[in-house]
Amino acid sequence: MGNTTGTLFRVTTWGESHGKAIGAVVDGCPPLIPLSEADIQPDLDRRAPGQSAIVTQRKESDTVQILSGTFDGVTLGTPISLLIPNEDQRSGDYREVERKYRPSHADFTYDAKYGTRDYRGGGRTSARETAARVAAGAVARKFLARSHDVEIVAWVATVHDITGDADPATVTRDEVDQTIVRCPDVDAASRMVEAIQSARKSGDSLGGVIGCVVRRCPPGWGAPVFDRLEANLAGAMLSLPATKGFEIGSGFAGTRMTGLAHNDPFYMDGGRVRTRSNRSGGVQGGITNGEAVEFRVAFKPVATVMREQETVTRDGVESTIAGRGRHDACVLPRAVALVEAMAALVLADHALRHAAIAPDAPPRPAGWGWGRFPDGGER
Amino acid sequence: MGNTTGTLFRVTTWGESHGKAIGAVVDGCPPLIPLSEADIQPDLDRRAPGQSAIVTQRKESDTVQILSGTFDGVTLGTPISLLIPNEDQRSGDYREVERKYRPSHADFTYDAKYGTRDYRGGGRTSARETAARVAAGAVARKFLARSHDVEIVAWVATVHDITGDADPATVTRDEVDQTIVRCPDVDAASRMVEAIQSARKSGDSLGGVIGCVVRRCPPGWGAPVFDRLEANLAGAMLSLPATKGFEIGSGFAGTRMTGLAHNDPFYMDGGRVRTRSNRSGGVQGGITNGEAVEFRVAFKPVATVMREQETVTRDGVESTIAGRGRHDACVLPRAVALVEAMAALVLADHALRHAAIAPDAPPRPAGWGWGRFPDGGER
Amino acid sequence: MGNTTGTLFRVTTWGESHGKAIGAVVDGCPPLIPLSEADIQPDLDRRAPGQSAIVTQRKESDTVQILSGTFDGVTLGTPISLLIPNEDQRSGDYREVERKYRPSHADFTYDAKYGTRDYRGGGRTSARETAARVAAGAVARKFLARSHDVEIVAWVATVHDITGDADPATVTRDEVDQTIVRCPDVDAASRMVEAIQSARKSGDSLGGVIGCVVRRCPPGWGAPVFDRLEANLAGAMLSLPATKGFEIGSGFAGTRMTGLAHNDPFYMDGGRVRTRSNRSGGVQGGITNGEAVEFRVAFKPVATVMREQETVTRDGVESTIAGRGRHDACVLPRAVALVEAMAALVLADHALRHAAIAPDAPPRPAGWGWGRFPDGGER
Amino acid sequence: MGNTTGTLFRVTTWGESHGKAIGAVVDGCPPLIPLSEADIQPDLDRRAPGQSAIVTQRKESDTVQILSGTFDGVTLGTPISLLIPNEDQRSGDYREVERKYRPSHADFTYDAKYGTRDYRGGGRTSARETAARVAAGAVARKFLARSHDVEIVAWVATVHDITGDADPATVTRDEVDQTIVRCPDVDAASRMVEAIQSARKSGDSLGGVIGCVVRRCPPGWGAPVFDRLEANLAGAMLSLPATKGFEIGSGFAGTRMTGLAHNDPFYMDGGRVRTRSNRSGGVQGGITNGEAVEFRVAFKPVATVMREQETVTRDGVESTIAGRGRHDACVLPRAVALVEAMAALVLADHALRHAAIAPDAPPRPAGWGWGRFPDGGER
Repeated sequence: MGNTTGTLFRVTTWGESHGKAIGAVVDGCPPLIPLSEADIQPDLDRRAPGQSAIVTQRKESDTVQILSGTFDGVTLGTPISLLIPNEDQRSGDYREVERKYRPSHADFTYDAKYGTRDYRGGGRTSARETAARVAAGAVARKFLARSHDVEIVAWVATVHDITGDADPATVTRDEVDQTIVRCPDVDAASRMVEAIQSARKSGDSLGGVIGCVVRRCPPGWGAPVFDRLEANLAGAMLSLPATKGFEIGSGFAGTRMTGLAHNDPFYMDGGRVRTRSNRSGGVQGGITNGEAVEFRVAFKPVATVMREQETVTRDGVESTIAGRGRHDACVLPRAVALVEAMAALVLADHALRHAAIAPDAPPRPAGWGWGRFPDGGER
Repeated sequence: MGNTTGTLFRVTTWGESHGKAIGAVVDGCPPLIPLSEADIQPDLDRRAPGQSAIVTQRKESDTVQILSGTFDGVTLGTPISLLIPNEDQRSGDYREVERKYRPSHADFTYDAKYGTRDYRGGGRTSARETAARVAAGAVARKFLARSHDVEIVAWVATVHDITGDADPATVTRDEVDQTIVRCPDVDAASRMVEAIQSARKSGDSLGGVIGCVVRRCPPGWGAPVFDRLEANLAGAMLSLPATKGFEIGSGFAGTRMTGLAHNDPFYMDGGRVRTRSNRSGGVQGGITNGEAVEFRVAFKPVATVMREQETVTRDGVESTIAGRGRHDACVLPRAVALVEAMAALVLADHALRHAAIAPDAPPRPAGWGWGRFPDGGER
Repeated sequence: MGNTTGTLFRVTTWGESHGKAIGAVVDGCPPLIPLSEADIQPDLDRRAPGQSAIVTQRKESDTVQILSGTFDGVTLGTPISLLIPNEDQRSGDYREVERKYRPSHADFTYDAKYGTRDYRGGGRTSARETAARVAAGAVARKFLARSHDVEIVAWVATVHDITGDADPATVTRDEVDQTIVRCPDVDAASRMVEAIQSARKSGDSLGGVIGCVVRRCPPGWGAPVFDRLEANLAGAMLSLPATKGFEIGSGFAGTRMTGLAHNDPFYMDGGRVRTRSNRSGGVQGGITNGEAVEFRVAFKPVATVMREQETVTRDGVESTIAGRGRHDACVLPRAVALVEAMAALVLADHALRHAAIAPDAPPRPAGWGWGRFPDGGER
Repeated sequence: MGNTTGTLFRVTTWGESHGKAIGAVVDGCPPLIPLSEADIQPDLDRRAPGQSAIVTQRKESDTVQILSGTFDGVTLGTPISLLIPNEDQRSGDYREVERKYRPSHADFTYDAKYGTRDYRGGGRTSARETAARVAAGAVARKFLARSHDVEIVAWVATVHDITGDADPATVTRDEVDQTIVRCPDVDAASRMVEAIQSARKSGDSLGGVIGCVVRRCPPGWGAPVFDRLEANLAGAMLSLPATKGFEIGSGFAGTRMTGLAHNDPFYMDGGRVRTRSNRSGGVQGGITNGEAVEFRVAFKPVATVMREQETVTRDGVESTIAGRGRHDACVLPRAVALVEAMAALVLADHALRHAAIAPDAPPRPAGWGWGRFPDGGER
């Protein structure tokens, strides 16, 4: 339980870090969306290990295969099964992690819950699981881009105590990807890289904050009460490994403003209702207002450090343990892809949920489909 | 859609602010839990308007009725229907809010989504809806207290720029309730009260942060991946009106620590696995580790202010609007009950989900039930 | 758990037979559908006790109240709370049914599951619960009629060994309601009435079969695999009290045909794909083909009989029990409303699910909504 | 949507008939259940093509791979990914089925719903999808057998107009498998084989009825209202391809009995509450009573026949089509495995749902787990 998300655009992930493979099943993607592995692989490559000097050098090409749900280059409306083989299943020596709980990892809690665990590379709790989410998120992103021209951009906003400047209104994926740390502020980025390399050298690790903006959601996506869009986004982000916080719009800082200063005044802009500021973060009462959806996600420093730390064994004996092998000293550069993927999953779900009841859905010309535009164009 | 939460302990709320009533249906509460209105009313009273000088003076006794699901004083295992009549349905003059969108409220987004809305008092988007959640949460709390001795305490941590001291390890509900602002730091509390009264006088409003601790969750509650306990808590908290952020354990501040300093070392404490610090916030890999679950929730300043603000009408004409009538200048004192209720709902659900698969559930003596203890005692 | 059905058009029912009230919450009904109690009451009246000489004379006016989800005469898109007070809560003498399990009732199984039960009138297991479903079904029916002109007609096909003739292609609700037994074959109907009265006189009871047809579902409603339309219909029908069987199209009799005779040949009818026969029952591969959806539901004879039968007590002592008080000798005439209601719930849900992904939804003129037709007309 | 079933024991299937593979993800299986491919393959072999002279000779070894969710020979509590490669992807000549709708198949309805379809071998609508269900069902069966000693036996009760005798109280899987048609009545079985071979020779096809019994379910499994056990079973069975009916206990025939004759009297049997007859089919009020759960499922004659039949093309032109290639003339012998699998999925889900709330779950000795028995034994 707990491995499925979404009401209409539903994703189930499976797989352990050192098992045969990991994967995802996407159920509910509308038909007629052009889709091939080439639409998914670039997102996976942004998450992949070994992509730069500041990430783990574990060898995994993370090559995705689409096993079902497409035909003649388009989606069928049936479940899309995505599979990523685990190539680098180093047999390794797991005797220590089998017995000892790594601090601030989930070894102890999995034993407490299940009475057993796959201790190789963290098993199901490994961040490797997120590759499956990124693959599924790429499908959601394709759907959102085609049907609603929605664009999602995330970036590294801070690493440890270094903050980069980024304007949510304008930041692009190209700007994000121009530095290996994925911070669009080039100066801050170079200091972040240094900080990460320095932490690695000392066997330590760093955390940080990822910012994300979603552009061109139409007004009306979301739901009242328990499935408010920000609730689903918060749940999605806190479902990512190592996350400790979420804020939307003005967030925690907004609690130090007064209502008069905080409110977003409405005005008309060429027939469209707009707000002059966006402290709401694009969502009011759980439903999009047409402004950009803006939020931030806090990632704790990586739990695996290369120095001895106090712990206990499975048998209740006090001991120590130190991290070994190849690990990220900071997950932020790779986590940008995770945040975007989870945002895409939440939004695709709400796009479909809204389409189901929308009383004022735009008229669709005869012959139109998700994947075919009446002007014959492709998006 | 969106008005139901939970997998096994399921709650559906319904009702508009100025309709006949609001309510909740709790489906999945185990049988044999002693339950009457007297178990629920105290939590509602903590949320109720008119309870002190610093909250709205709207007149609603918020008296709950249990319409189903109990018999002879205990739960039946069938749905518990909770109803709270709306007493104060002032006919009022709604001509202005019918036409004009209140800034940073959900008037516009509801129109955008549904093509209509009940504009009286905010309709479904009114925070009044949360009374139904508090009633449902009281049922969850009763179940958790009886079956697992779980205790949930929330408090006002900050109002605007005033921070109160509170020790999550020891703070009690009595300490919280000793000030009308529900901050256990008496000095800070009096400054908070002043700030709220000052804001109200100037027609302005304030926000703040609520802290919450959940004690005595056994290790093993939660789930991998999408239903990590912190994901469900974050989703629950961001589903509350006016919330803009959530953080657990070290939260956003933790992103400025290094891994060596951040990790929680394990040690043995009388046969129990414990951690020396609790930056994880009681959850590792989405599953409780037996330490206290600690989190914070950001509430924006109240959107209703008593001064003219720029807005537009339903017909797309620019205009201005000012709040009128009785409103909170700061929701934090009342929102303490909301945060506790949502936490209780999430935890009750995971308690049941874990019971379904737990391989090492403690042996239950013959004749035992949720509501009957073998020693004849009551908890 | 188990008291909610539907993915997008979701209904939760609650209430015990002799509690304060019963009710339903309908979440997911699209906005702008005209709706008042007058749309619901007629369906409830068809289910109500005391409506004719052949049904139980229990006194319940079954007057429904809409507590939320509508405003200015139309649905809001928010949850519709429906409440039916229990008027006839005769205190009665329940000492016998408290101790003794009524044969073929759910007294024993509820005790086995929950360790307790509300024994007054069967509590949650009472067929009284179905009034809440009928009320919710009336909302679904209203939506289906307005948005898709869908029509649902059920009738009593057999009582015990008496079979009435009815042509699914043409049978109308008026024809059904012209006899108190709700069989459109007037001759058979009078024999059914006699049989029911005879059974009642001898303290016995009868069962039978209800037929149902759903007209004008567009092709494309339904889903592959687990949520095939016939799967959801079967589940809905077998969720009704006293049901023992379901068949669609050719049903059990169709197993005695060969494929050549059984297949439904396709032909063109004015641009529409049609089938010459309808042994598929309007559904192929779980999805509607545009033909009428036709199915039948088996109801066992009523379990409450007025003669002593062998049973055991809650304490495991063998004993006997006889029914007392006012009961139906045959539920079929009232169950017609139940079958229609459950069919409406299933179809409304699939209508919305299909709208969410339909690539070829018909173009909607500007300004159109579920409740407003561009020609200004009402349906 | 529609490709997932279950609340706690959740199964998602994916795959098209002639894609790369088909598979299932089982989420929610408790940990510590011994599981390997060898537990699953025998059930797949009973469903596989080519197993006898009377089934299709399509070549598929249907070899299952477990890709995740197990470690050291036991389940982990994490999702179990099951994959079955499609070996026999004959390129074939699909030009005809691409254009023409096969009568009583789902070609037309899939086009109507999705605007596209994988026409090779029926794509997602192919009965090949059920192999994934059988694999998932084998996991459920293993769990049920170990934890509750539950046994499920299905058999061919009728083929066309030939009925075999079988006593639900005693019939065993060995008796079922002793004939290739899977009817335990050897005489009837040989006539069934003849009928099937005769139908095949004439290019025709047959249907029939499968009976199923589930033994040793404890009292208390199931739920009120929408998730009554018989409702979930009916939904599960009607989700199988080619099914047209379901009945439990006395079924349709029971409608011709009177209540006095139909009721199941209770008596005591060594401290256990039992019923003298089992017309309820083991379920009362939606909840098991401890008697055997007995039901029957109607399968229509196979839609693919080898003779020309009237149809239309995708472009709306009338035409004819005849089946070609390798097909079953009767699916019943293979469908026995499908019925058992779906029954196992429903029961495993309800076993977990009941464990979540059971007030009187039997005491579990210290150290006990689903997969480890305190006596050290294995089941």
